[in-house]
Amino acid sequence: MIGDKHGLQGELQKTQANYVPLSPISFLTRAAKVYPDRLAISYEGRRITYGEFHERVSRFASALDSLNIGVGDTVSVIAPNVPSLLEAHYAVPAIGAVLSAINIRLDATTVAFILEHSTAKVLLVDDEFAELALDALQKLKTKPHIIRIADSFIEPAPQISPIEYEDFLASGNPQFTLQLPKDEWQPITLNYTSGTTGDPKGAVYSHRGAYLNAVANTISFGMSADTVYLWILPMFHCNGWSHSWAVTLAGGTHVCLRNIAPEDIFDQIETAGITHTCGAPIVLNMLIHAPETVKKYPVSTIKIATGGAPPPSTVIAQMEEMGFEVVHLYGLTETYGPATICEIQDDWARLPKGEAALRLARQGQSHPMIEDYQVGDIDRAKPIAADGNIVGEIQIRSNTIMMGYHKNPTATRAAFKDGWFHTGDLAVMHEDASLEIKDRAKDVIISGGENISSIEIEEVLTQNPKISAAAAVAKPDDKWGETPCAFVELVEGGTCDANDVIDWCRQNMAHFKVPKNVVFGELPKTSTGKIKKFVLRKRARSLESRSEDT
Amino acid sequence: MIGDKHGLQGELQKTQANYVPLSPISFLTRAAKVYPDRLAISYEGRRITYGEFHERVSRFASALDSLNIGVGDTVSVIAPNVPSLLEAHYAVPAIGAVLSAINIRLDATTVAFILEHSTAKVLLVDDEFAELALDALQKLKTKPHIIRIADSFIEPAPQISPIEYEDFLASGNPQFTLQLPKDEWQPITLNYTSGTTGDPKGAVYSHRGAYLNAVANTISFGMSADTVYLWILPMFHCNGWSHSWAVTLAGGTHVCLRNIAPEDIFDQIETAGITHTCGAPIVLNMLIHAPETVKKYPVSTIKIATGGAPPPSTVIAQMEEMGFEVVHLYGLTETYGPATICEIQDDWARLPKGEAALRLARQGQSHPMIEDYQVGDIDRAKPIAADGNIVGEIQIRSNTIMMGYHKNPTATRAAFKDGWFHTGDLAVMHEDASLEIKDRAKDVIISGGENISSIEIEEVLTQNPKISAAAAVAKPDDKWGETPCAFVELVEGGTCDANDVIDWCRQNMAHFKVPKNVVFGELPKTSTGKIKKFVLRKRARSLESRSEDT
Repeated sequence: MIGDKHGLQGELQKTQANYVPLSPISFLTRAAKVYPDRLAISYEGRRITYGEFHERVSRFASALDSLNIGVGDTVSVIAPNVPSLLEAHYAVPAIGAVLSAINIRLDATTVAFILEHSTAKVLLVDDEFAELALDALQKLKTKPHIIRIADSFIEPAPQISPIEYEDFLASGNPQFTLQLPKDEWQPITLNYTSGTTGDPKGAVYSHRGAYLNAVANTISFGMSADTVYLWILPMFHCNGWSHSWAVTLAGGTHVCLRNIAPEDIFDQIETAGITHTCGAPIVLNMLIHAPETVKKYPVSTIKIATGGAPPPSTVIAQMEEMGFEVVHLYGLTETYGPATICEIQDDWARLPKGEAALRLARQGQSHPMIEDYQVGDIDRAKPIAADGNIVGEIQIRSNTIMMGYHKNPTATRAAFKDGWFHTGDLAVMHEDASLEIKDRAKDVIISGGENISSIEIEEVLTQNPKISAAAAVAKPDDKWGETPCAFVELVEGGTCDANDVIDWCRQNMAHFKVPKNVVFGELPKTSTGKIKKFVLRKRARSLESRSEDT
Repeated sequence: MIGDKHGLQGELQKTQANYVPLSPISFLTRAAKVYPDRLAISYEGRRITYGEFHERVSRFASALDSLNIGVGDTVSVIAPNVPSLLEAHYAVPAIGAVLSAINIRLDATTVAFILEHSTAKVLLVDDEFAELALDALQKLKTKPHIIRIADSFIEPAPQISPIEYEDFLASGNPQFTLQLPKDEWQPITLNYTSGTTGDPKGAVYSHRGAYLNAVANTISFGMSADTVYLWILPMFHCNGWSHSWAVTLAGGTHVCLRNIAPEDIFDQIETAGITHTCGAPIVLNMLIHAPETVKKYPVSTIKIATGGAPPPSTVIAQMEEMGFEVVHLYGLTETYGPATICEIQDDWARLPKGEAALRLARQGQSHPMIEDYQVGDIDRAKPIAADGNIVGEIQIRSNTIMMGYHKNPTATRAAFKDGWFHTGDLAVMHEDASLEIKDRAKDVIISGGENISSIEIEEVLTQNPKISAAAAVAKPDDKWGETPCAFVELVEGGTCDANDVIDWCRQNMAHFKVPKNVVFGELPKTSTGKIKKFVLRKRARSLESRSEDT
């Protein structure tokens, strides 16, 4: 008998020498020791080495500690992808506190809700978002301690707080010891879902989960010390899909970026030597349709991971034509970002180009640290046949699933029913165990008793070269219950009318799925770039019947 | 307050959906689901896909289960790098049992000691080692259940057991579920140290540690699904430095190899498209000095990790001249293999070639998952100045440190004294936090009160182009206490005498460090390729004084 049945006692005990709680804080500690002079952060001409990064984080942690912030306290940040937000990803957990990176595109009411719900003790505000923060703070009974983040590119906003971030850091002790959690099952961050309906829910991440998903990213994205990562994807979105920690594990360089515009992105690609980046499909679309005036530098060596919404296959194909290597991920706030990855299979090389892009538009298979995934029955989490046809819910089991929703045991229990995390996304599983999302449960269109996938309609619409983006939602219908209604954005200079669109659909899908209404114009998007289908549903409801509308 | 202070109860509980014990078994389960048709194992014309690998492991686990083998039971294997030994790395832990892969180069008495000390319940024996196993079994009171591993390349040895491995597998259930441990802090393997003195000690590895060191290897060695790993390094050596699990995590191909000879290695490099491999410095030496008759295929894309003994800088330089990319690792049986890695630093590109090879001959800095390391005072584990000069003991703290020594609480306590794992290796730490081993504590030569590093002498000796390998040990001396005695292997066709060697040393080191005696001839090596210094010390003691000897 080796060891004892329980493994926790007897001769083979855990000691300080052979057991250390998993925490991404260790990535920074190691990087600072192993390559202190390597470039950790680059931002608008500022260069911060790993040694300096560690020192700044130590000062930050020490300064927070001096404010009596500690285990379980929330520290919130309202900032774009600037170095201070990245530093908060290490300094806040290094005193046992919990980071809540708040979406800068939210309205003041939602920001106030989040600050109150998370009982934020400290709030860091980038000057660019001072007004938003002040509006939100007005609505709060108890105000957090405020620190402002100034930037030479931004109009100073001293009204938000007399304490500036760099002064706050200067007040800290550079020798302060970054503390690992006592238990790796301890909260590290709090990420509010974008909440297309109802109040946002706060997904709590653990040190263990953050560590493991960072590991998974480093492996699946092939990152190394040579990696130069461009921060397009907001850090307030699932902590940058855990890349805020993964790039440090790899020993690569974080290139921070305030403005997510095509000219800034291509400029960084050229000047900083970017190797890896991430962005939602909407960002890919923006790069593809960048104005003629933007200089598009060659991008042949850049891997770009996309996710957050299903990317149309045409978007993937166009990105690859530009020279990007597209990695397609699927995940949710509750999964620390990536949960599945569409890994290119050996035999795709033999497929026609369009077909390979279609395969890559699937959500794929489990990301490295995911224990298991299935398409299951919503009620009882029974797996459904992997035939590429029967639709069920994507269900996941993993160390990289959130600890639960903050102060919401009912939602937590529902999410973890029957030992699986219930994503609420509807998909089929193909024979090769790859997932293909058909819809969010609430986005399915039920017409004449048939389920119609809004994503399937959108995929056909965006294959039309005149259409740059599209969404399909249900429109109430007396006869059919619901009918599909399409909302369409045209490419620059693209002209077509509703009948052209409907004809295109008739040629490319079963007739019962063809939209009965077509509306042209810009699509409303959430702060994370997802299309606000609830707004479109409202618009669809207010439309007259097809004859008048088209 | 997010979560609760203890993190283990309350609203954010661990559930089956968000908490899974870490175990490398999960790597195989995922690989079989995500890419069942990808080549997992290649061996002498046999090709086993990940789907088949998983099925074979399931059958193997089921067959062991039918023998009533379970949690904490030892399953031993005496085999070279054949597929069955790799399969045992998954099947044995998948029923909670513990794998003990026994060194095939040991003598029967030591094998018997190991089988008895570990109370092996099952023993798998490769036909090539039937005689060794039978000799060992004769010495045992209680015999384990024996299964033989036949191979068309090896004389059949049915006398060892009527049950052959493939038949045993055939008897198992291919649908058997591979079980994760209840607790990740549960033994997975048992690795006996080579024990240059005294009985071997059994280092117990945990599922958690194996998982994390496999992750560290995958990251530090840059492995991916394109990796084709050649099994030169024995799997019975720290489970192949955790590569038995890491290659599967990466989704790469394991190329098994029975005979570790230059012609076989170069042949596999060419035919299998090898990208990664590992070997002790002795293997590197063998490749460098391969006979003229061996066809040396180009190796420009191959990474080779070396360790287990400090590689002389000339060996590294010669390997790089051949086109290999050398990765230098340092570790021990107690550290699951790699504990430090000599990462090439950006500024080395500006160093002269010889100087860069000298830097690469250092043991380097912590491997990715290592929490901390230091050069410390042996007695109190106090860190010593990182000045490249003061010698102390290498001490490590990590999840990738063994659980302890099996049935040896005294040795375990000593190893983990003061919260650090004590390696017994003496080193300096340079200003860049890199380690440079000076000696095993017991190999230091103390002459006239001065400590002389045997490794420093060996480094100078092997820089002589006529010398292919060298070892220095202490020879008792009436006047000086001890004096250095050199044992030297010459390159093919190399001629030089003791005075040439001593002159070479005088030109390249402080005079008090120069060997007083030089002995020519093949060096005795342990089963893991380490030079048996205790044999040399004995020989040195029996030498006459210098005048007669040289």
